[in-house]
Amino acid sequence: MNVRVYVTPKKGILDPQGATVERALPNLGFSGVSDVRIGKFIEFRLDPPPGTTLEQARATVDEMCRKLLANPIIEDFTFTVDEG
Amino acid sequence: MNVRVYVTPKKGILDPQGATVERALPNLGFSGVSDVRIGKFIEFRLDPPPGTTLEQARATVDEMCRKLLANPIIEDFTFTVDEG
Repeated sequence: MNVRVYVTPKKGILDPQGATVERALPNLGFSGVSDVRIGKFIEFRLDPPPGTTLEQARATVDEMCRKLLANPIIEDFTFTVDEG
Repeated sequence: MNVRVYVTPKKGILDPQGATVERALPNLGFSGVSDVRIGKFIEFRLDPPPGTTLEQARATVDEMCRKLLANPIIEDFTFTVDEG
């Protein structure tokens, strides 16, 4: 299964990387950009034991996100799991 | 317009963050994970001048990625631009 995880700073949490990019873009000639938020994009392959349902695989990925991939105190995450 | 940019290390480029996560997951009890790649997920709002077409907005975002958001030498990027 192909898994893609999107991690973003929670609303209200300071995002210094995003603020820096937002300040830099006008200097490069790009205007009209706001609300820049920078997070992580994580891709991996998951080969669960035979007989695992998509729902069970999604529960596993959710646990991975909570335990390692994201910091649920300051970050939100979403993910997709595609068979194949 | 809402823009989402996905930046990933190019294939063949060392991804130390991804390698670390791949080694850590089995220790946390998660098996069957491989090919972990960690990149960036960037969201922002783009308010282009009136009359800008979606195609022109996409060209602008492509240029932003090449100039600032990604490093095209070691990273690949894709993006979506939604009106609204």
